[in-house]
Amino acid sequence: MALIVQKFGGTSVANTERIFNVADIVTKTAAAGNQVVVVVSAQGDTTDDFIEKAGEITSNPPAREMDVLLSAGEQISMALLAMAIEKLGFRATSLTGWQAGIRTDLNYGSARIHKVKPERIQSLLDRNRIVIVAGFQGINSHDSITTLGRGGSDTTAVAIAAALHADLCQIYTDVDGVYTADPRIVPGAKKLDEITFDEMLELATLGAQVLHNRSVEMAKKYNVDLEVVSSLTRNPGTKVKEVTSVEKMIISGVACDKDTARVTVCGLPDEPGKAFRVFSLLAKNKINIDIILQTSSNQPGTKQDISFTVATASREAAVKILEENKDRLHFDSVTSQDGLAKVSIVGSGMVSNPGVAAKMFEALSDAHVNILMIATSEIKISVVIDIADSGRALRAVHDKFFE
Amino acid sequence: MALIVQKFGGTSVANTERIFNVADIVTKTAAAGNQVVVVVSAQGDTTDDFIEKAGEITSNPPAREMDVLLSAGEQISMALLAMAIEKLGFRATSLTGWQAGIRTDLNYGSARIHKVKPERIQSLLDRNRIVIVAGFQGINSHDSITTLGRGGSDTTAVAIAAALHADLCQIYTDVDGVYTADPRIVPGAKKLDEITFDEMLELATLGAQVLHNRSVEMAKKYNVDLEVVSSLTRNPGTKVKEVTSVEKMIISGVACDKDTARVTVCGLPDEPGKAFRVFSLLAKNKINIDIILQTSSNQPGTKQDISFTVATASREAAVKILEENKDRLHFDSVTSQDGLAKVSIVGSGMVSNPGVAAKMFEALSDAHVNILMIATSEIKISVVIDIADSGRALRAVHDKFFE
Repeated sequence: MALIVQKFGGTSVANTERIFNVADIVTKTAAAGNQVVVVVSAQGDTTDDFIEKAGEITSNPPAREMDVLLSAGEQISMALLAMAIEKLGFRATSLTGWQAGIRTDLNYGSARIHKVKPERIQSLLDRNRIVIVAGFQGINSHDSITTLGRGGSDTTAVAIAAALHADLCQIYTDVDGVYTADPRIVPGAKKLDEITFDEMLELATLGAQVLHNRSVEMAKKYNVDLEVVSSLTRNPGTKVKEVTSVEKMIISGVACDKDTARVTVCGLPDEPGKAFRVFSLLAKNKINIDIILQTSSNQPGTKQDISFTVATASREAAVKILEENKDRLHFDSVTSQDGLAKVSIVGSGMVSNPGVAAKMFEALSDAHVNILMIATSEIKISVVIDIADSGRALRAVHDKFFE
Repeated sequence: MALIVQKFGGTSVANTERIFNVADIVTKTAAAGNQVVVVVSAQGDTTDDFIEKAGEITSNPPAREMDVLLSAGEQISMALLAMAIEKLGFRATSLTGWQAGIRTDLNYGSARIHKVKPERIQSLLDRNRIVIVAGFQGINSHDSITTLGRGGSDTTAVAIAAALHADLCQIYTDVDGVYTADPRIVPGAKKLDEITFDEMLELATLGAQVLHNRSVEMAKKYNVDLEVVSSLTRNPGTKVKEVTSVEKMIISGVACDKDTARVTVCGLPDEPGKAFRVFSLLAKNKINIDIILQTSSNQPGTKQDISFTVATASREAAVKILEENKDRLHFDSVTSQDGLAKVSIVGSGMVSNPGVAAKMFEALSDAHVNILMIATSEIKISVVIDIADSGRALRAVHDKFFE
């Protein structure tokens, strides 16, 4: 007998037919002799409907009350799912976030889970109940309802799995796993059977569609075995683990982020603290930086350039802030460019396999793709290229490693 | 400074415009220097929508999960109202049933309030918050959500008013008070400024549209001053109190119940226990009896008749059950008749005013209404008549006392 946490997103419970599909998955898991905790999101468009209702009242709803409103969504879906499971002849009990012991910090709208007090869930499991828990919500130290922000239900599922020492946490979605590349762009993309937590985190642009980073970080921290499965096909999905067991492919996936702009600060004085001053200024203005590159200078004392990438929407603001502080930062000029894309390969195998970068650059060269920036980490290599080349680049790199 | 509890029903918060109307009433009350606790029902058709959703899943939803589902309705409306109140520049905090300390018994779907722990509401009031509480819901000793059944939000409001020792509990509805008769039938019907709890309870058929009996019973028990007010006109409504202060009208209202059938059991032996046997049999079969009349016999030992009234839908069942037990009950025959109406006058003033019954009968006689049955209590006189006469009877009796 295993203890399995199964999470279902909003599209999986969007209507009566799909609710019964979920009930079927859950009850088959229980009938196979497992204890099951189910985490559900709000049905389909419920959250959007609520946001619209609030928007009719005020353009600036108080965050606490927004969470009271939004959390009603999972309360609806969890009750309906419990009814469907009971209809199939199993015993089910639904619990809101506070009933399930999901304690969070005070940040309405984007709370983080402090701890899970699993006693009530455990006691229901001990009495042979299937337990359904509202995803995305918890309760803070004021006994007020909070919501967890984007990817919240995945995080709820992983947190409960960690607290209950579950054998497996299954994330059911409408895709059937994590692929080596986006199948809409790369026709030859393959489903991965396994991937490590670190690879999954680096593959954020692929993974965001199926698993939110917060949940992967938490799974890594508490070593919770995750599985991404399709609630429609029910085929074996992708397992996300600390260490993958099979003989490793060198890389796990190829990702492409098309929302990339480059900003270059030219002619900075070569002195300690110049990078700190530039990036603390940008951070203070809430501009998220992705890649940072600094050209090394051959001659000490000469001026230097620093380039970085930001989301396209942040480019103008970044340039404006830098220019307003030109005198204080002592640089010569700022240039910027949007319409760029970042193509990355990710794989823990590359640590022990030299020549991975060269192989990637060869693929890009063969495909006549010009590289504007290169950045590497231990398990990732990213290149910034023209967005017009991105599809061709993605396919070329993918085929080089996976064909 | 007074502490006022204001309750608003589902039609009062049905859309954004009406929510702002409620927010206006509430904030004006607060701006006048009062502490305000607001109790809200679910918006307009929300509850019906939820019942329909559950009906698509199962014809027999588990009661616990039905309460989880339904209670989401007030959570939505209370959050929206809090947003509207904050938009008007006041501080508001919404509380679900459990957050507001509404503890109930275990009966899902029709729970009764055990007690209210008012500490959290009180502490928010002390910090100058307008407190909004979800009506109709509470939490039981298993920490599971319950709903209170029909009239539940009125009961929540009165229970909170009692626990907080509020100065007044206002029930806002779409009518502007309690009338001396149904204004749709009696054009001259007058709005009552005041009425006693007992009169309100006896006037159930009038009062059910504006105040549920459970809330009136609770208000009487804890001596909570109630007021029925229109959320649309905002005119002074009707106050419901233990003792009404002004020089009393003899009667407070005239009510008519058109759903009345009469059943007569003829030729029962004149021996102890015959009434018990008849009515325990009917009670066992869930038939609700209203008026019971037994003709007195002049000669001991002769047979007797017992008549009673039931709702029209129960007549056939009552007759069938009695006839199936004819031998055991030793009566001669059962007769029955539907198409009847019960007209009642109610007034605590009639205790000290002889001749009230005679005055009522005179009115009916002048209007050529034949009386089939008469039943009296301390503050009520009811007559059963042909339904075809009911409108004429109601107007005649009303005009006799109020014109």
